[in-house]
Amino acid sequence: MVAANNPNPRGFLLVTTTQLSFGAEIMAMADRLAGWSDAPPGLTCAYLTPAHRATAAQLREWMTAAGMTVHIDAVGNVVGRYPAADPMAKTLITGSHYDTVRNGGRYDGRLGILLPIVAVGALRRSGRRLPFHLEVIGFAEEEGVRFGSTFLGSSAIAGRFDPAALARRDAEGVSMAQAMREAGLDPRAIPALARRPETLLGYLEVHIEQGPVLLDAGLPLGVVTAIAGSSRHLVTIAGEAGHAGTVPMGLRRDAAAAAAELVLHVERRCAAAPTLVGTVGRLGVPEGAINVIPGRAELSLDIRAGDDATRDAAVADVLAEIERIAERRRVEIETVEVLRSPAVPCAPALQDLFAGAIERAGLAVRRLPSGAGHDAVMFNGVTPVGMLFVRCGNGGISHNPCETMTTEDADLAARVFLDALTHLEPKR
Amino acid sequence: MVAANNPNPRGFLLVTTTQLSFGAEIMAMADRLAGWSDAPPGLTCAYLTPAHRATAAQLREWMTAAGMTVHIDAVGNVVGRYPAADPMAKTLITGSHYDTVRNGGRYDGRLGILLPIVAVGALRRSGRRLPFHLEVIGFAEEEGVRFGSTFLGSSAIAGRFDPAALARRDAEGVSMAQAMREAGLDPRAIPALARRPETLLGYLEVHIEQGPVLLDAGLPLGVVTAIAGSSRHLVTIAGEAGHAGTVPMGLRRDAAAAAAELVLHVERRCAAAPTLVGTVGRLGVPEGAINVIPGRAELSLDIRAGDDATRDAAVADVLAEIERIAERRRVEIETVEVLRSPAVPCAPALQDLFAGAIERAGLAVRRLPSGAGHDAVMFNGVTPVGMLFVRCGNGGISHNPCETMTTEDADLAARVFLDALTHLEPKR
Repeated sequence: MVAANNPNPRGFLLVTTTQLSFGAEIMAMADRLAGWSDAPPGLTCAYLTPAHRATAAQLREWMTAAGMTVHIDAVGNVVGRYPAADPMAKTLITGSHYDTVRNGGRYDGRLGILLPIVAVGALRRSGRRLPFHLEVIGFAEEEGVRFGSTFLGSSAIAGRFDPAALARRDAEGVSMAQAMREAGLDPRAIPALARRPETLLGYLEVHIEQGPVLLDAGLPLGVVTAIAGSSRHLVTIAGEAGHAGTVPMGLRRDAAAAAAELVLHVERRCAAAPTLVGTVGRLGVPEGAINVIPGRAELSLDIRAGDDATRDAAVADVLAEIERIAERRRVEIETVEVLRSPAVPCAPALQDLFAGAIERAGLAVRRLPSGAGHDAVMFNGVTPVGMLFVRCGNGGISHNPCETMTTEDADLAARVFLDALTHLEPKR
Repeated sequence: MVAANNPNPRGFLLVTTTQLSFGAEIMAMADRLAGWSDAPPGLTCAYLTPAHRATAAQLREWMTAAGMTVHIDAVGNVVGRYPAADPMAKTLITGSHYDTVRNGGRYDGRLGILLPIVAVGALRRSGRRLPFHLEVIGFAEEEGVRFGSTFLGSSAIAGRFDPAALARRDAEGVSMAQAMREAGLDPRAIPALARRPETLLGYLEVHIEQGPVLLDAGLPLGVVTAIAGSSRHLVTIAGEAGHAGTVPMGLRRDAAAAAAELVLHVERRCAAAPTLVGTVGRLGVPEGAINVIPGRAELSLDIRAGDDATRDAAVADVLAEIERIAERRRVEIETVEVLRSPAVPCAPALQDLFAGAIERAGLAVRRLPSGAGHDAVMFNGVTPVGMLFVRCGNGGISHNPCETMTTEDADLAARVFLDALTHLEPKR
């Protein structure tokens, strides 16, 4: 291992170019995939568009070249298999999604496919077999851009595909089932994609952090403890519109001021626990005018935490504060819960597997929750889940063309991932 | 005077129906004018539309019937004159506007035309002349709906008409000059409409309050001390967008949270002085998404007070707080001043004139600033200005079909106005 001998306080490794062969390969592959876009020059790769199908074909080619047997399944997943010597061995799945958000980044999702392909290539070149079948899956869809339905690829593999999604239509009115048939896929075959849990060893996912925590800590890699659960609400505040010049402050029922109080409460409350975050991402006074006291305000709440108890306590406090604001300001506040998803804990054994590999690379181990959802969520309850985070550059920005990571970090991640694979001992 | 003999503690007068003849007439006239609308069933009466021209024709008819000599001037004002016996007497102007906002109320502006028409009718019937010429003017335009240019009617009379406004175009591309010519008006004749200040005794305007102060105080009438000046800014906040799940609270630069702090500061600061009001009427996160930390927020500031010193101090404090918020939250805040208009004080003698008439009606005198602008503003510096406010019903709502006032209040206002007229002694 290069990494093991070259720790340094900033977490970067002083390596020569030739030592970055894994990283350079991963970066070049990500660059190449970014060339297929529904809307160049930015990268948009929505489910079953020409760009999406070209991307799948390229992944298939690379997986084949790395020594895997490959097929594209009924939902569009690109599935590469690097079999164990023992055909009765269990299967470890690793992967992530190859679709993107609109005008997204080139590493989100794709890193978790490309890195394992490179790792398998290395195993193959050294003639090494693993004591488990390794499946590298490029999931066809996770972001929900085209049909508003997320996790299509991983849900199929995990046996959680919702057939109702097939009737959803895109902006052009094309149904998902129709789009699949036009792409040569057979929607009727999706249920059979579900893996039997008893055949699985676990699910690993490598992903860029999509946040600034590792960057801020000066660490290239992190072990994910849990994928945060989400609680989302839409909030509507009804006060009383009035003339901005004629209603004294004490007689106002200003919906925007009520919204402002709520925004600051969410911020304050969610700063009070380590993994807790709370966001008012939508905020507005519909048809607001400079000389009219807002009679109505609308906002969204998104509250997440690494564990459900922490999140639920924060949500309860925010909802209680909403009641208090409504009473104090004589406004009506309506809240509608639009999402509640529980936190998905990562298996301690798989956390330790990655932590051990990071330590052997000479790096400090940072454990952190994932605030974003990932394909790994679908495998919760199906098989043990583990996730490795790779530092995101540029302030941690993601879902954005400015999303970056370094070749050095990609290289380190690949070596740590390979090390973890070779330390994973399947229990019989 | 009916009013003088019937005071009661709630400020209402116990009068019989026949005693409300002025009020009933005013209300019936306002109802009739509300029948002409650009967009029925609501009342919209924009400059020089068919509804607007029909309204002018009706006003002309009523003024004539009340005993005035009437003409429609070059800007569309309906000007009725009730001459003094002495042709060398000075002129008192009273009036308000007959255009409305979109889907507006039927008393805003119009009360200040109809009430003097009814008052002149009463003078005429009793054969009474005043020691000054009385001009009742229905100003053609104050709200700025069609051409985005306000106070067209009163600015012409006050000698402040801006000829650049003639080139403005409405939503259909029709220029103001063109619309005027099509209505038979001659834009070139507008400059000659300006009254010579030395011929004027003063300007009086009766207007519904458009706010809840009198309603809250249980008083039908109020004496306006000043028309508040306005300071308006547009504010843009640039923070950093980020994933709602992945950026810890301490690392955020949330533009919406900065906006929220500012909203609450404006509210708090502007509650600190009696006539001061501050409003954030526009507030929004452009393209906000439920799972994205707002990178940008936009809002408007509107700060008014009965005197300029109070308002300027509040504006200075708010701008200083903006600096502090920007620094503390590491966001960039840009403010653009879009309006600064000084307060227009009402002449003490004309305040006292109305106050005396209100007292003689057996009512408590409430003096209050006008937070809204009125045609009276145009006469500042031209001639002394006085305003009488009439209580607004329905919580004080205006610029809205729910705008109301009572027949009793209209009646009282007409009697107080008449009493004031007969107590106004022109100085030679």
